[in-house]
Amino acid sequence: MAIDLKPLLSDNALNMRRSVIRDLLSVATRPEIISFAGGFPNAETFPIEELKKIMMKIMDEQGAIALQYGPTEGYIPFKQEILKRCHANGMSGDLGNLIITTASQQALDLISRIFINPHDVVLCGLPSYLGALQAFWSYQAEPYGVRDGEDNFAIMEKLISQGKKPKFLYAIPDFQNPSGVTMTLEERKDVIELSRKYDLYIIEDSPYREIRFEGEPQPTMYSMAPDRVILLGTFSKTFVPGFRLGYILANHDIIEHIVVAKQSSDLCTPTFNQMVAAEYMKSGLYEKNIGKICELYHHKKDLMIQSFEKYMPEGVTWTNPEGGLFLFLKLPEQYDTRELFDIAIKKNVAFVIGEAFHCDGSGKNTMRLNFSYATDEKIVEGVKRLSDSINELYGRHA
Amino acid sequence: MAIDLKPLLSDNALNMRRSVIRDLLSVATRPEIISFAGGFPNAETFPIEELKKIMMKIMDEQGAIALQYGPTEGYIPFKQEILKRCHANGMSGDLGNLIITTASQQALDLISRIFINPHDVVLCGLPSYLGALQAFWSYQAEPYGVRDGEDNFAIMEKLISQGKKPKFLYAIPDFQNPSGVTMTLEERKDVIELSRKYDLYIIEDSPYREIRFEGEPQPTMYSMAPDRVILLGTFSKTFVPGFRLGYILANHDIIEHIVVAKQSSDLCTPTFNQMVAAEYMKSGLYEKNIGKICELYHHKKDLMIQSFEKYMPEGVTWTNPEGGLFLFLKLPEQYDTRELFDIAIKKNVAFVIGEAFHCDGSGKNTMRLNFSYATDEKIVEGVKRLSDSINELYGRHA
Repeated sequence: MAIDLKPLLSDNALNMRRSVIRDLLSVATRPEIISFAGGFPNAETFPIEELKKIMMKIMDEQGAIALQYGPTEGYIPFKQEILKRCHANGMSGDLGNLIITTASQQALDLISRIFINPHDVVLCGLPSYLGALQAFWSYQAEPYGVRDGEDNFAIMEKLISQGKKPKFLYAIPDFQNPSGVTMTLEERKDVIELSRKYDLYIIEDSPYREIRFEGEPQPTMYSMAPDRVILLGTFSKTFVPGFRLGYILANHDIIEHIVVAKQSSDLCTPTFNQMVAAEYMKSGLYEKNIGKICELYHHKKDLMIQSFEKYMPEGVTWTNPEGGLFLFLKLPEQYDTRELFDIAIKKNVAFVIGEAFHCDGSGKNTMRLNFSYATDEKIVEGVKRLSDSINELYGRHA
Repeated sequence: MAIDLKPLLSDNALNMRRSVIRDLLSVATRPEIISFAGGFPNAETFPIEELKKIMMKIMDEQGAIALQYGPTEGYIPFKQEILKRCHANGMSGDLGNLIITTASQQALDLISRIFINPHDVVLCGLPSYLGALQAFWSYQAEPYGVRDGEDNFAIMEKLISQGKKPKFLYAIPDFQNPSGVTMTLEERKDVIELSRKYDLYIIEDSPYREIRFEGEPQPTMYSMAPDRVILLGTFSKTFVPGFRLGYILANHDIIEHIVVAKQSSDLCTPTFNQMVAAEYMKSGLYEKNIGKICELYHHKKDLMIQSFEKYMPEGVTWTNPEGGLFLFLKLPEQYDTRELFDIAIKKNVAFVIGEAFHCDGSGKNTMRLNFSYATDEKIVEGVKRLSDSINELYGRHA
């Protein structure tokens, strides 16, 4: 007789939410489906031949270190390479400001773990990255979503008056996931002022920043206020996701707590993977490959936008991001992309419903599309199918 | 002005404990120190040349998969190889009973996460593995330590009468860390009976089981009661720790909850690392290498025991494990190995104080020694130094 599991589960477990993306995608894995749903980088950008050489070098010269346990804080030469890039981008910091994480999702988890008590409020965007929301929920946080253009200070006062002062503010300032939108300099200053006024930490999630293919970069919020900002970086989009490498840049006190939390989470991030990445960065190949990634994704984004212009029915609008992997589509208010999803899957095209990114359950008329992964042919064909699906949805409600 | 961090930290963060091992070891990293403190496998056992070939094969044939995101549950061919070994060892299970973790520490974390509410009691050994205690503490559990030979049923009744029914029982049945002791068949049956009587899950942590160099194996508790046991396995001791690969074998319901928890913890374990390990197992090299590991550690364990017999002063006793990486030393009751540690470090030899493994603060006269890592010469010389240190400690209190 099996044990009744439910009474044994923690409140955290009962509060966790399965990724809607995951569940939707379980129907979208058939090979005939064109998927704009995932957040996969394009495998064309994986530097297979270069990595083979580096792997051999590391195994020959430092195999015994590469295959052994490493420090929880991360492999020092890898940290040094990351710091070099941070410094070149106007971000200060030493080895004590940096910890390597098992990619960015672990960073979100560790940050949540050291800050969140059950029912704590955290500020985030409407929409915001689903993986971050999942991490917050898994510690029973109550994410409060703020729309672009809303007055952060007024929201803060309202929350404080309700005894719900947020623990931190979570933002993805560059090419946001899912919206593709980038915060202006004014918006960044505004958030930092908020942080100064209310002693609030800012979590600056920065997975896409280096994939800018148009326009001028804004400074990171970390470079503007290193005492207030916890920056999360990842190698999943600019290098390879299969190595699971990311980092947190923050003040020494915070890093100290993160180190203790990581000790009991997974002891250390794979040493071999860190060494390969360190060597790849050191060789200059990393920098060069980012150029290649930008060029490829620029092309794919343009192609997707052109296809929208050609095929999309009336009333559909979209963001036109200057970088990253995603753009966001909006249908007229009265339509639900969950209904569209069912139609689209029958026409063999997939996306993520925008509602999944809205912690308050809004955004039902929105959807996220990824442009980095599909081939050119599939981008055009997929947009056609999606346009057909929207026309069908329109027809149903005409 | 920096923000005052403490009022912002979660109760979990405030309850986390830094690893004593880590802090003690920070003084023990000088090259002149012979360390019996860590839990490192011997790098001689790392199959560097074989892995180079496998890495090249995978990069050539499946690079685009190896470097991409993978499923949260783990890479299926790797899971199949693990299941094959489990079945050969009398353990039932299908793909739905298995999840790949970022090594065993993540398994301990995920188990804690889905079961533990603040102040929940969990049963463990006195002593027990420090990394497990850290995971339990990080979710504000209250580990309750049980000594060998104590009546589990009486303890259970006592705890229940106090309204503190434990959430689960944690055990390392084979070559326990730190004691090196293996549970008898009777003891295993007793724990399973306890689990049946009180609807209690058993966490069977099994990192060393395959490193048996003497005596006859007992069945895993999982094979005796798959409905009651959650088995944790790792490749850190039988393959390489630098790849961070482990797994959980449990009933479908539990695995489902673990998958959701892992999604928000780190999305997935590195695909490349799983593929290399899968290929290594498939080739038969894994099995062969375990033979080599057993032979080497057997020799090192014998050498350490022989050195004890030759050099250790009166009153010191030790366990003589049939496998694994550790053995446990006891001084007469009145001595404290913390004091010994300071003496030993001056004589350039390090160990871990036994107190660190006792959740109730007992075990002050005990210590854990690792025999897998040091060279033969260092084992003999280190035991001499340790014996000298104990003599000095005795002298101080004579």
